[in-house]
Amino acid sequence: MNNKLNIGLIGLGTVGQGVVKVLSSYDDIEIVSCAVKDLNKKRDVEVKNLTTDVYSIVNNPEIDVIVEVAGGVWVLEPLLTAIKNKKHIVTANKELLARHGAQLFDCARENNAAILFEASVAGGIPIIQAIKTSLKANNFDCVAGILNGTTNYILTKMEEDNLSYDDCLKNAQKLGYAETDPTNDVEGYDAMYKIALLANIVFNKRIDASKIYCEGITKISPLDIKSADELGYKIKLIAQAKKVENSTDLDIRVHPMLVWKSQAISEIKNATNAVLLKGFPVDKLMFVGPGAGEFPTTSSVVGDILQIKSEITNSDAILPMQTCHHHDYANQISVDETVNSYYLRIEAQNKLGIIGQIGLACQSFGVNLSSILQKGINDNGSATIIVVSEDCREKDINSMIETLEKTGDIKVVNKIRVM
Amino acid sequence: MNNKLNIGLIGLGTVGQGVVKVLSSYDDIEIVSCAVKDLNKKRDVEVKNLTTDVYSIVNNPEIDVIVEVAGGVWVLEPLLTAIKNKKHIVTANKELLARHGAQLFDCARENNAAILFEASVAGGIPIIQAIKTSLKANNFDCVAGILNGTTNYILTKMEEDNLSYDDCLKNAQKLGYAETDPTNDVEGYDAMYKIALLANIVFNKRIDASKIYCEGITKISPLDIKSADELGYKIKLIAQAKKVENSTDLDIRVHPMLVWKSQAISEIKNATNAVLLKGFPVDKLMFVGPGAGEFPTTSSVVGDILQIKSEITNSDAILPMQTCHHHDYANQISVDETVNSYYLRIEAQNKLGIIGQIGLACQSFGVNLSSILQKGINDNGSATIIVVSEDCREKDINSMIETLEKTGDIKVVNKIRVM
Repeated sequence: MNNKLNIGLIGLGTVGQGVVKVLSSYDDIEIVSCAVKDLNKKRDVEVKNLTTDVYSIVNNPEIDVIVEVAGGVWVLEPLLTAIKNKKHIVTANKELLARHGAQLFDCARENNAAILFEASVAGGIPIIQAIKTSLKANNFDCVAGILNGTTNYILTKMEEDNLSYDDCLKNAQKLGYAETDPTNDVEGYDAMYKIALLANIVFNKRIDASKIYCEGITKISPLDIKSADELGYKIKLIAQAKKVENSTDLDIRVHPMLVWKSQAISEIKNATNAVLLKGFPVDKLMFVGPGAGEFPTTSSVVGDILQIKSEITNSDAILPMQTCHHHDYANQISVDETVNSYYLRIEAQNKLGIIGQIGLACQSFGVNLSSILQKGINDNGSATIIVVSEDCREKDINSMIETLEKTGDIKVVNKIRVM
Repeated sequence: MNNKLNIGLIGLGTVGQGVVKVLSSYDDIEIVSCAVKDLNKKRDVEVKNLTTDVYSIVNNPEIDVIVEVAGGVWVLEPLLTAIKNKKHIVTANKELLARHGAQLFDCARENNAAILFEASVAGGIPIIQAIKTSLKANNFDCVAGILNGTTNYILTKMEEDNLSYDDCLKNAQKLGYAETDPTNDVEGYDAMYKIALLANIVFNKRIDASKIYCEGITKISPLDIKSADELGYKIKLIAQAKKVENSTDLDIRVHPMLVWKSQAISEIKNATNAVLLKGFPVDKLMFVGPGAGEFPTTSSVVGDILQIKSEITNSDAILPMQTCHHHDYANQISVDETVNSYYLRIEAQNKLGIIGQIGLACQSFGVNLSSILQKGINDNGSATIIVVSEDCREKDINSMIETLEKTGDIKVVNKIRVM
């Protein structure tokens, strides 16, 4: 092939349009054709050669990579045809892979075709490739996580606003976080497909998704959330796969769980996803990020495309994406030029007018204060005053401190920046 | 080459010994020789061909990959020699790469040699490769994190135990979390090298580590931690690199920061590390895990070794590590056989002996309770009783529930498993 990568796109919904937008800045990647259900649907982006005939794409000899972001299991046959035509596949389709992955991966191996599916689990979080490569040295005991944004959003709102499941579902539907028919999310099926894929690569075993115990969030009531809270827990929809102790059997399930508030995963809110891994030698890891959405999912889809491109256009180079390709030094600004919010701990003589002096100095250097804290007078007669500034330039706060300290009554004992 | 990968190891300290232990289970990877400073030091592991002559390793034509876990910049010349001899490099040496990376990476590109360094930043967290590959589609605004376990451990203990910096440092030294000369950690230099490496790959620019503003934690007092706490913050040593707005300049720094308690990074405790990324299209990601230690670091080192092995032994296959190589289905146990702790919400008639009935049923099925919560009587005369069990088999709790409900006075309204 030449240096240009030709893409055949299947699906031009939210994620498909994100992929088109992001790929538009790559001169060496071209979307040659795109299969859609409805040619006339209004879309944000323009793609040439729209077609309803998916086979015209998977049989097009110009195309190197099929990017499938349509969803549904109907794409199985077209993708098998594409693979037999030696095309590589990038897909976000968890249901397809969880139900028909064995057939697809067997076919891909026979044809030396790649099937990459980073976007199919946990949206923008780069977890699939990490497990397959950087973490390959590990024997894992457990993979678990919050893998469905819709249900996590509903549970977060039930907890924060003390609302019923039904009310939160309606709000989520209004805001686009839940579909009109929410079954796939709220009954846990979406998370079930995702944990099947994770278990597959974490334990190197094929998984029968239909054997995964699956229970949704429809029976969770505000009373459960409140009672759990009183006992120190939050309620989350957890998908998990773990090794049964002293056995090679797997225990894979999706259901609501009470999670101790001190576990970091209890703090994962709204549509955010989290994946936990535990294995040897690495011990425990957590990955947190957006689990869905046009652009986060596009990040994973395009990441997969770039990896295939890199492999097939740099066949002589070792690990071409991991080579250093840049030579220019960054222009690094000095700390004086940085802008920060500051915490200052001030020790002052207990005199009239100290707060006034601080205020005046702040004013003359354009420093606004957002917090001031003083609690009485210290035993030695001095006062400890804590102030937090709004954003200002480092050199301005330093000049302000210098001016303050010149009075002799005031000393800035510590300056700490605020994140 | 044949299918066996020959390793030359430089350094046999904590991480080196971890690498030897983990690689011992790989028949197709052999440590051919190992360079150490002291041949007679007592070690946990046996390695053949120990030598003090590092050049006998980097010039050994049998060796495919040099694994450098010695630390220090003295290894620069030996590694350059190895690269010129077409050997690939796996290293955990942040100082070397932050100070002499340009020279090493230039030499590697000329010789088509890989330099992988996953272990050099954030120990076991797979962040370097993720940025270079899965997240390649992104333009990042910011990378930041808690990159030094020693200082995070000290700050956590100062906060939790209300101790001075000096006392916490002494404890950390006793427990092996800090070195006898702690300068490199507590002054922020270790985090400085790491943020230089992250900024390099996140922004695709070379970084001059000597221009990074760096301030350690030695001036943080318990009073600062307490005052910050009252204002809603924790104090963390944060390393960060961000783009200056409307510019290509970079703002790179290491210093303590006040972090809002509602930010997830404020919950990263003890020696755990965290890396935050913000970019388009992915938005915000957080990676959490062990930042150092024999085995977490070994996970990253061996992950890098396996990637190089995969590339040089499967040169015809596309993305060989991302291919599915397993065919067997897992044996998945049924939910009845799983073991869990359970939350039960029980509605009961307000009668004498209800708690006794619950206790009796639990006893006969071997279910221990860890929590019981009842708050008065409901308006309709019934009582809501919440119980949380210790671990028991799903089929036992179900039999217990069935027995309880047979009485007619008790209904288990919801059963939720506890993580």
